[in-house]
Amino acid sequence: MDLATIIGTVLSFGLVLSAILVGSPLGIFISIPSALIVIGGTIGASLVNYPLGHVIGVVGVIKKTLFSSLESPSDIIEKFMDFANRARREGILSLEPLLKSIEDDFLRKGLQLTVDGLEPQVIQEILETEIQYLENRHETGAEILKVFADFAPAMGMIGTVIGLVQMLQTMSDPSTIGPAMAVALLTTLYGAILANLVFTPMCGKLKTRSKEEVLLREMVMEGIISISKGENPKIIEEKLNSFLPPKIRKET
Amino acid sequence: MDLATIIGTVLSFGLVLSAILVGSPLGIFISIPSALIVIGGTIGASLVNYPLGHVIGVVGVIKKTLFSSLESPSDIIEKFMDFANRARREGILSLEPLLKSIEDDFLRKGLQLTVDGLEPQVIQEILETEIQYLENRHETGAEILKVFADFAPAMGMIGTVIGLVQMLQTMSDPSTIGPAMAVALLTTLYGAILANLVFTPMCGKLKTRSKEEVLLREMVMEGIISISKGENPKIIEEKLNSFLPPKIRKET
Amino acid sequence: MDLATIIGTVLSFGLVLSAILVGSPLGIFISIPSALIVIGGTIGASLVNYPLGHVIGVVGVIKKTLFSSLESPSDIIEKFMDFANRARREGILSLEPLLKSIEDDFLRKGLQLTVDGLEPQVIQEILETEIQYLENRHETGAEILKVFADFAPAMGMIGTVIGLVQMLQTMSDPSTIGPAMAVALLTTLYGAILANLVFTPMCGKLKTRSKEEVLLREMVMEGIISISKGENPKIIEEKLNSFLPPKIRKET
Amino acid sequence: MDLATIIGTVLSFGLVLSAILVGSPLGIFISIPSALIVIGGTIGASLVNYPLGHVIGVVGVIKKTLFSSLESPSDIIEKFMDFANRARREGILSLEPLLKSIEDDFLRKGLQLTVDGLEPQVIQEILETEIQYLENRHETGAEILKVFADFAPAMGMIGTVIGLVQMLQTMSDPSTIGPAMAVALLTTLYGAILANLVFTPMCGKLKTRSKEEVLLREMVMEGIISISKGENPKIIEEKLNSFLPPKIRKET
Amino acid sequence: MDLATIIGTVLSFGLVLSAILVGSPLGIFISIPSALIVIGGTIGASLVNYPLGHVIGVVGVIKKTLFSSLESPSDIIEKFMDFANRARREGILSLEPLLKSIEDDFLRKGLQLTVDGLEPQVIQEILETEIQYLENRHETGAEILKVFADFAPAMGMIGTVIGLVQMLQTMSDPSTIGPAMAVALLTTLYGAILANLVFTPMCGKLKTRSKEEVLLREMVMEGIISISKGENPKIIEEKLNSFLPPKIRKET
Repeated sequence: MDLATIIGTVLSFGLVLSAILVGSPLGIFISIPSALIVIGGTIGASLVNYPLGHVIGVVGVIKKTLFSSLESPSDIIEKFMDFANRARREGILSLEPLLKSIEDDFLRKGLQLTVDGLEPQVIQEILETEIQYLENRHETGAEILKVFADFAPAMGMIGTVIGLVQMLQTMSDPSTIGPAMAVALLTTLYGAILANLVFTPMCGKLKTRSKEEVLLREMVMEGIISISKGENPKIIEEKLNSFLPPKIRKET
Repeated sequence: MDLATIIGTVLSFGLVLSAILVGSPLGIFISIPSALIVIGGTIGASLVNYPLGHVIGVVGVIKKTLFSSLESPSDIIEKFMDFANRARREGILSLEPLLKSIEDDFLRKGLQLTVDGLEPQVIQEILETEIQYLENRHETGAEILKVFADFAPAMGMIGTVIGLVQMLQTMSDPSTIGPAMAVALLTTLYGAILANLVFTPMCGKLKTRSKEEVLLREMVMEGIISISKGENPKIIEEKLNSFLPPKIRKET
Repeated sequence: MDLATIIGTVLSFGLVLSAILVGSPLGIFISIPSALIVIGGTIGASLVNYPLGHVIGVVGVIKKTLFSSLESPSDIIEKFMDFANRARREGILSLEPLLKSIEDDFLRKGLQLTVDGLEPQVIQEILETEIQYLENRHETGAEILKVFADFAPAMGMIGTVIGLVQMLQTMSDPSTIGPAMAVALLTTLYGAILANLVFTPMCGKLKTRSKEEVLLREMVMEGIISISKGENPKIIEEKLNSFLPPKIRKET
Repeated sequence: MDLATIIGTVLSFGLVLSAILVGSPLGIFISIPSALIVIGGTIGASLVNYPLGHVIGVVGVIKKTLFSSLESPSDIIEKFMDFANRARREGILSLEPLLKSIEDDFLRKGLQLTVDGLEPQVIQEILETEIQYLENRHETGAEILKVFADFAPAMGMIGTVIGLVQMLQTMSDPSTIGPAMAVALLTTLYGAILANLVFTPMCGKLKTRSKEEVLLREMVMEGIISISKGENPKIIEEKLNSFLPPKIRKET
Repeated sequence: MDLATIIGTVLSFGLVLSAILVGSPLGIFISIPSALIVIGGTIGASLVNYPLGHVIGVVGVIKKTLFSSLESPSDIIEKFMDFANRARREGILSLEPLLKSIEDDFLRKGLQLTVDGLEPQVIQEILETEIQYLENRHETGAEILKVFADFAPAMGMIGTVIGLVQMLQTMSDPSTIGPAMAVALLTTLYGAILANLVFTPMCGKLKTRSKEEVLLREMVMEGIISISKGENPKIIEEKLNSFLPPKIRKET
């Protein structure tokens, strides 16, 4: 699993918890109804916002984001140098036997189209559509988390206003004002914590991951098209390297 | 009707209601004048913002969004494989008898233009204009709900400030301060609930639905153009599949 | 005049007014200095923001927006079917005698260029520039109202802070605190009402109107270019219809 | 100097001043330390945000914006009709003697390139780069003022929180609470005034001016390219006129 | 190091510090737990938001931004005039011996490709990819600082709400309310200072620097392509100069 996510979550929640424990028992910060209205309300509003499948699907997207690992760019470049050299020496059909051993669907599909002899332009069209709709699906995942992050503080605010109205209506005994207001503020606190320590950073990580994956796919697409155009392996290497920061470039 | 919308609405409103009932009778949260100023004011401001027809039309858009169901992408691919094979075997004119039985206006129009022998480029131009203005009409619907979601809390805030001014001007008896402020806060609460539990999620659902519909139309357009270019059914399948997530792809 | 604007304004202001009158005499909500600082300050800041001519010009733009009415799209399609048929039967020069009777400057200019025999591409270039700069001028109008809507609550807030500072400095008699704070809040109320019930919805209506006008112009441009290319009237009709929602399409 | 800027500044500051003087002596609104923290802090944060040269340069940009006046569009059209007619009658080289008397660098450079016989496409490329980087430089000026407008209220808020903390820590004598809070609020007031009456409107004016200047340059570029293509003066006039609102068009 | 950053930081922090010291001892503004929750929480949330490498890498990006200095545009133009003249006189291969002495990777790579005789179009493609991904890497750095600037006030607000809840729950002795609230406000203050005096301006400077570097790279790319097309040195000078403000242009 992604190390930064674990460290970050432990760090931020740990600090919030210790900030609480330094000043008071944890108990006064726990309120099941407050948690219910914030979490349940957020899920409820999100279900109106998105089809059921999307909201449930977000769990899968998060899992995949946190646990799957991407191929390294230099491995991809190496692979393509190999393909390009082979295609140059023995013809493009010599790539066919390799197809079965390729695990990545996108790469295999692209090479298959190349081996099938489609025009580079048609291949580019198909692969670009594929990348674009991959991006769209990632964006939907990130958007749902963004919507969660927007609704959580709103639900927290609604909960606090409800609490304030109840307190103000029954303000006979001044000594109860403080604790009642404290309870009213809990939903605001829950909403802020959920939004800022959970949903917003999760959404950010999803976007970062998506960018990395799209970048890799664009490299692969560039490589496949170059091969299908029969370009010089040296130029293919230059092209793929220009996607990367100078430090991690593959120089032959 | 859309299941998620029902579950979501029941869940979020149920939780708000129970949060209220746990602490006080429901009665202190009901105020007809407060409801009037928030709902009426929101409608009023929206009527200045949009022509009468648009505001009324939003009801139809919402209905259509919640109740209509879209064709599944794999059905569309299947249909196009059928068209493409037929066109390849028996010529493009063989599609003419099928036109009458097609329910979807967009698909029928596109095929009609193909059968009429227009250039693929002209067909694309006409269908793209159609998709673009469909998107525009959907966006207008979503925008109106967005405007509702913006005006509702603003009206709530205006109502609360009015209540505060009245309370502050007549602050002779301290015991009336609490209840007066509670009433003043009700418009804020109404505005927040309307915006966050109704208008914003509705707007979100409209956008999601619109995206799905546009995606289907783009698939259909891609298919029609490929047929009018006389492309290989195998390639058409590849092209249409690249619009979809790998899981639900149609493989022959 | 635009019916929705009248209904909307009466509705929203009526509700605010009755919300006030239910709880107190109107008098405590009237303060000339508060109105002056909000309205005057908004105008002042806008004058720094825009040249004098633009701010004055906004009145004209609003008037034109509210009172002028646009041609219906189906009339335009009908007109173009007529032009296209005539041009096809009797040659493009046969349109020349009609030019004088055309009221709309944009249509007349476009047809004139067509009759003059310019290349379709040059005509498109000229008409697109014209539409783009029309859009720019509309946007300026909408932007100024947006700036008004941004400055009004800011001025309201400045007025309230001034009032608070004065109240806090002279807090000797507690009984004056309430009324003084009530007065201080009035500028906030004025700012919120101006922004949310007047400027923002006006800005929205301007944008909606602008979109409608631009859409009509784009239809006209499409028609003119098609005529200058000598396209089939049937295809022109298809093209123009694709700008419209299916319901109000013109079918021959 | 720009009249609207003077009127606007006098109006808004005058109203704020009179709002203050109606209720209290001006003295209670003056606090040198508060002014220092808001103004100095804003400048400090902006210096971290931008290189020293940019922040100092903003003064020049503002001056140039307020005091320089632009050529009128109809003068430009007239000038180009003259150039175009001359070029048509006597050849493009006949423009060379005029070059020295042209004051505007952009126009002179463009005509020089035309007289030198460069391809229209190359001229367009060079002039577009020039316009784009002019726009970039203007945007930098506007952005700095935007950054000032963002930092000023933030500094005001920081100042107020500092004042509140100090007041709350030494709350022994209740009678000092009011005045202390009043002083704490002054930084908020200063920040709001600077942002809303000075920086934001200045930024807006810079953008408006920049748009006007860019529009003029685009007209000039269009004219130069048309001349270098040897287009008909009549068409050049049509093209340049389409940049302008119908009212101020130049008709021959 | 960047002078403006030092001056700006000293100025803004100095003013905040003196604003504090004028009214009270510094001690009441220091709270280690408050600092921990704001700083630690911000880092924690950012670690969830970005991979570990990115967050650590931001230190390097900041260092590079503050300490590295860019070549002056006029030096670049001079260099290119030299290359262009040499290439024109002695052929493009005469540039080869110079390659080794060029320090800038981007320039060297571009010239190498030119000397290798690649098509201008292919060179442009490779260099544009390189510039685009350089921009992406800079943007990531700026985005992380932006995320820091967003999380810091959020953590400050969470800390203040926690403090408020604790204070309200134990409001037995009124004399403790003030100091407790003062302490609760400290996290808000820390969050506002970190966001507005550190992270936001740092992010701004990173963006400014990135723009400058990208502009230089675009000039270099333009020059290389012009050389590879064998353009006239005079025209190359015109092209490169149009990237610059008139004042600092290089005229031969």
